[in-house]
Amino acid sequence: MKHGLFFTIFVLLLFPHVAFGASGRISDETKTCVECHSSVNPGIVAGWQKGRMARVTPKAARSMVSRKRRVSFETVPDRLARVVVGCAECHTINADKHQDTFEHFGYKVHVVVTPEDCATCHPVEVGQYGKNLMSHAYGNLKNNSVYLGLVNSTIGVQSFSDMKLSLEPPDEETHADACFYCHGTVVEVKGTETRNTTKGEVTLPVLTGWPNHGVGRINPDGSKGSCTPCHARHQFSIEMARKPSTCSECHKGPDVPGYQVYKVSKHGNIYSALGKKWNFNAVPWTVGEDFTAPTCAACHVSLVVSAEGKVVAERTHQMNDRISWRILGLIYAHPHPESPDTTVIRNKAGLPLPTELTGEPVAKYLINAEEQDQREKAMQQVCLACHSNGWVKGHFARFENTIKTTDSMTLTATKILLSAWEKGAAKGLAQADSIFNEAIEKKWVEQWLFFANTTRYASAMMGADYGAFANGRWYMSKNVQEMADWLEFKLEAKE
Amino acid sequence: MKHGLFFTIFVLLLFPHVAFGASGRISDETKTCVECHSSVNPGIVAGWQKGRMARVTPKAARSMVSRKRRVSFETVPDRLARVVVGCAECHTINADKHQDTFEHFGYKVHVVVTPEDCATCHPVEVGQYGKNLMSHAYGNLKNNSVYLGLVNSTIGVQSFSDMKLSLEPPDEETHADACFYCHGTVVEVKGTETRNTTKGEVTLPVLTGWPNHGVGRINPDGSKGSCTPCHARHQFSIEMARKPSTCSECHKGPDVPGYQVYKVSKHGNIYSALGKKWNFNAVPWTVGEDFTAPTCAACHVSLVVSAEGKVVAERTHQMNDRISWRILGLIYAHPHPESPDTTVIRNKAGLPLPTELTGEPVAKYLINAEEQDQREKAMQQVCLACHSNGWVKGHFARFENTIKTTDSMTLTATKILLSAWEKGAAKGLAQADSIFNEAIEKKWVEQWLFFANTTRYASAMMGADYGAFANGRWYMSKNVQEMADWLEFKLEAKE
Amino acid sequence: MKHGLFFTIFVLLLFPHVAFGASGRISDETKTCVECHSSVNPGIVAGWQKGRMARVTPKAARSMVSRKRRVSFETVPDRLARVVVGCAECHTINADKHQDTFEHFGYKVHVVVTPEDCATCHPVEVGQYGKNLMSHAYGNLKNNSVYLGLVNSTIGVQSFSDMKLSLEPPDEETHADACFYCHGTVVEVKGTETRNTTKGEVTLPVLTGWPNHGVGRINPDGSKGSCTPCHARHQFSIEMARKPSTCSECHKGPDVPGYQVYKVSKHGNIYSALGKKWNFNAVPWTVGEDFTAPTCAACHVSLVVSAEGKVVAERTHQMNDRISWRILGLIYAHPHPESPDTTVIRNKAGLPLPTELTGEPVAKYLINAEEQDQREKAMQQVCLACHSNGWVKGHFARFENTIKTTDSMTLTATKILLSAWEKGAAKGLAQADSIFNEAIEKKWVEQWLFFANTTRYASAMMGADYGAFANGRWYMSKNVQEMADWLEFKLEAKE
Repeated sequence: MKHGLFFTIFVLLLFPHVAFGASGRISDETKTCVECHSSVNPGIVAGWQKGRMARVTPKAARSMVSRKRRVSFETVPDRLARVVVGCAECHTINADKHQDTFEHFGYKVHVVVTPEDCATCHPVEVGQYGKNLMSHAYGNLKNNSVYLGLVNSTIGVQSFSDMKLSLEPPDEETHADACFYCHGTVVEVKGTETRNTTKGEVTLPVLTGWPNHGVGRINPDGSKGSCTPCHARHQFSIEMARKPSTCSECHKGPDVPGYQVYKVSKHGNIYSALGKKWNFNAVPWTVGEDFTAPTCAACHVSLVVSAEGKVVAERTHQMNDRISWRILGLIYAHPHPESPDTTVIRNKAGLPLPTELTGEPVAKYLINAEEQDQREKAMQQVCLACHSNGWVKGHFARFENTIKTTDSMTLTATKILLSAWEKGAAKGLAQADSIFNEAIEKKWVEQWLFFANTTRYASAMMGADYGAFANGRWYMSKNVQEMADWLEFKLEAKE
Repeated sequence: MKHGLFFTIFVLLLFPHVAFGASGRISDETKTCVECHSSVNPGIVAGWQKGRMARVTPKAARSMVSRKRRVSFETVPDRLARVVVGCAECHTINADKHQDTFEHFGYKVHVVVTPEDCATCHPVEVGQYGKNLMSHAYGNLKNNSVYLGLVNSTIGVQSFSDMKLSLEPPDEETHADACFYCHGTVVEVKGTETRNTTKGEVTLPVLTGWPNHGVGRINPDGSKGSCTPCHARHQFSIEMARKPSTCSECHKGPDVPGYQVYKVSKHGNIYSALGKKWNFNAVPWTVGEDFTAPTCAACHVSLVVSAEGKVVAERTHQMNDRISWRILGLIYAHPHPESPDTTVIRNKAGLPLPTELTGEPVAKYLINAEEQDQREKAMQQVCLACHSNGWVKGHFARFENTIKTTDSMTLTATKILLSAWEKGAAKGLAQADSIFNEAIEKKWVEQWLFFANTTRYASAMMGADYGAFANGRWYMSKNVQEMADWLEFKLEAKE
Repeated sequence: MKHGLFFTIFVLLLFPHVAFGASGRISDETKTCVECHSSVNPGIVAGWQKGRMARVTPKAARSMVSRKRRVSFETVPDRLARVVVGCAECHTINADKHQDTFEHFGYKVHVVVTPEDCATCHPVEVGQYGKNLMSHAYGNLKNNSVYLGLVNSTIGVQSFSDMKLSLEPPDEETHADACFYCHGTVVEVKGTETRNTTKGEVTLPVLTGWPNHGVGRINPDGSKGSCTPCHARHQFSIEMARKPSTCSECHKGPDVPGYQVYKVSKHGNIYSALGKKWNFNAVPWTVGEDFTAPTCAACHVSLVVSAEGKVVAERTHQMNDRISWRILGLIYAHPHPESPDTTVIRNKAGLPLPTELTGEPVAKYLINAEEQDQREKAMQQVCLACHSNGWVKGHFARFENTIKTTDSMTLTATKILLSAWEKGAAKGLAQADSIFNEAIEKKWVEQWLFFANTTRYASAMMGADYGAFANGRWYMSKNVQEMADWLEFKLEAKE
């Protein structure tokens, strides 16, 4: 008998996945997919087999006590009661809604799995995500005339002749390769293609903007966004979504340096040094036990509890529930926008910006002070799990001071730019010219998009040198000097 | 009986922490703390429980053979003989010396645990640390008029009006958010605050410069520095202190790129690829067995021995025992300063700098050639554990050559700056103006603070492209060209 | 009996290395080496003991079925039939060919182990490597007059007097510390040195260009290259060679940002988040099972198979088998060169460049369209292991578009430079002056060497912001504006 026990323990030691709910069988439809695709795309099939979806039926997932649940639907759809979630379960669901559905060996298959498809089992998360700025990342960029101007002047091809530079707007492939890689492309069926395979001829849809897994992708079923940027296919691991490297795909450049700042913060240091021993798969996620320093997910997404079972932070895929200020991507920091669709915003000058060019917020479209306060308090609950009240208060006071001083430095840069426009050293709004295409304008952009942003990030997440020399205050200070010199040299050259 | 053995082995496999000295009980005082704070700050309590301090009494720690010891006191203080080190042991010790001590449910508690407190069990380490430049990082910056000028011009807010830029000195919060984040703030009690809690009213001290864990922090007990930047609270893991990510908090920016350079070095490559299998908890640390490539700690801090038990490097928290040159942070590389308090230094021009503006070292305040030689030899002992004598000699010869060439390139930049001052293109020392506030001066700063520094780091630690294109020689070479052009344009604009 | 089985399993669990072929004894010669060197260089000996070479004889390695083999020789050399590969096996082989062979306690030992030495057991890999651009990295840089000009102007020491900058060419140590750190130095015996040791006097060769492990090192036996950059001594772990951090030593700077781009790609994200559970030691390497996202090695080097045993990619150390375009290091992207020795190339203008200054490829020295197509298809086989055909086609179409647009932006920068030369604002080819030493020339270099390169890398490996703001299109766009302004200011200043 004892041997039996030993054997069980052995098995669990060697094959831990046996332990957590090998509760379902694979559907016949999925078996058919796997039959060919394990040879056509072996990595997909083997990867999927490593994940929880390949082992647990939605019904079993639903049957766990509420805190431990990873699904949020109320009623188990019939077809998902007894089978695990495989190829067919995701790629044939909602077939009628999908413009990219095609006939494939007797099945109606679609290429792109969308949040709408995932909502079958995860409706609450998809609903929350729809309120996130990210799900609107395509339109908020493409349909904002100011921002589209920044995109075009940045990624379009410039030519030089007769001592003058001129700009051609970017083609679609360049759009998809640059900003819309993260913001998301428009994926539509533009035709079909027939290919000879070992199984005979297959006809497949050809898609625009493909491949892409941008957070605001416009999908062939009309839905917005994508779950795979964080829950990478086909393992869909919660461990991956909770690790900061996942966020680095879109949050590492000088314009959005979240990952870099995190890495050098004390939180990031602890994660890098000790994280290998943490439990990234536990739901809920117990602070101090499963992990001893927050990752991005701990503060912004995950359901975090204390060892005693008290909720420290509710799970949210809206992500802005605890974000009171928007500190990146716009000219000045400002209270978070009310609607995730920011294209509706207009400032007094008629520009689609949440502040005036001189920094005053356009209150009408932004959350009010009370809502800001409430969000800040929710975030502070996470901090308080490991820090004293005095610590937290001091931190947030410092952060708000940094918002002010960085905005002041942006205003200084803006004033130099306005002088340049006024004195004819550069052409701007009054001349109906792009405000992003001349050298001094590009320096102005760096002042806020790179340096002020980075400094604020460093303050928010304690990123040390990112508030000083690493794309922080040093560059803000140097940049205004260089802008002023440029203006002087340009006026001289014009004379 | 055999089953008993199996069981023991099992337990050790599954719960290895049981093995290493669960030797003590938790004090009644600490139990009282934990009673409330496990609910108020669950992460702190659970994190502390993961650490060695929560399991081992100082007495048991002292009883190990000398090489394996992690404590350095001679006599066990009575109160620490039978209990492990918990909340009360650190936060109530030396109560009378602490300006931040407050009455808290019958106990005299202080907020900030200082090196002086840690010295109860680790006096040798704290003593060594006091001889480290780091422990003087606050004063060495704040009380050096030249360096404070660099800080102010970098992080102060600039304004633009009448085509001119002007500077307002930084406020305290900005200081704490930028340079003094790493250098350390002054933490003093500035008042008290009373809050309603579930346990009734509590009155707590309100601190200046808080939060902060800078290496040269001025503490409310008058001591200097902080142990937590490397030994992060409340786990105080030696594994963490030995991993390079920990050092990255303060050593990653363009001014101090130690971590980046290490990461791309062969040592860093090996650590990244194979380090997950190393033993970061062993004391002493056996080269080749516990680890196969050095981390920062191996060369600069840890007690390293060979498999045969020979000492490769003695443990030191002074850290400069094996550093002969100071290659970063100052205008030119120079022999390491003698005293950790560098505010006493004056060059011939009367400036608080260890070299003249043109590079000659101010010998009086610096270690002599013999001491340099001795330190270099001590460092080479570490290299020789894995490298031949010829390898090591070649490496150091190359490094010293790089010190010379990078200093030459800084001198070139300085000569351009001196010309600019002389010709009135910029205002400098002679005009009693800041030497850091104009564009050409900022370029001059980058020449040494970023590019020469980085090139020397790359040479010292074999950082490949950091000696070439990654903030290295490429930028030194480009920068002097741009400085010369700026001077030309400025003189033209002035005419 | 059952206990016996348990014991065996235990042993395998605790000491997995016992399992894989502890098949040989250590040679007497190596024992002699270890006798002294385990005390002289303990880290080397202990590190070597961790590796496979210290446990497996070449004969045992050869006896595995072909797919699992890590050696490629046909006949076991006698001396390697019964012993594992230790110090003596590598450091005394081919003694006569080695200029650095010296008498050492009765043995003929050489310092530098070369690819020619490794070819004893790995002839196929060494043969392939010889066809790699890397193995020619020394000559391709040193013997290309244009490129050597770039090196010299970058790392030489500049001086400033009479308002003019002048350049002194770099010394040998600087060469070895910068570009040739990765490209490789010339290692030759320049003399001997006698040292007193605890074992008596030893006389050792003194080497030029030492230390170095550059990929194109010129060795004292006349061979080219080095195996240790990827298979770091003395563990020679395949795990290390397969991990991207290893490649970062030479592929991380702004000129070759492969590692950075990989890290933020979805592939890199998955590796960072989940790679700790992968099997990096399996030969062959099974996609989806051993790893779920490619590292550098998966696409460029390793033998990758499917779970069903089908070959996805053949092992190659030539590395360009699957590379159709050369996207880095030269002014414009172009089809891969035919010969690894690129010094033979001449464009119409007589320059040793694979394209004209205006971008047209010099077809004669480059692979043709058919070969490009074949290589691209081979690479796509790797992609198809986890991606659909439509995905892969879309990806490569986008990549080729990016090659075109980045080349266009380089052409724009080139046209500004040509104008500057023509109008006398800078001195170039016509004036027989360096084309790399003036500020506008350095900006031109950054256009292609940093920004166009980075954008192409980002496109090839899906590096998101590296195609936008992180050294990508933003900088290309800003740089041409600044080049045009510089030209304007310079012409003004000259008047």
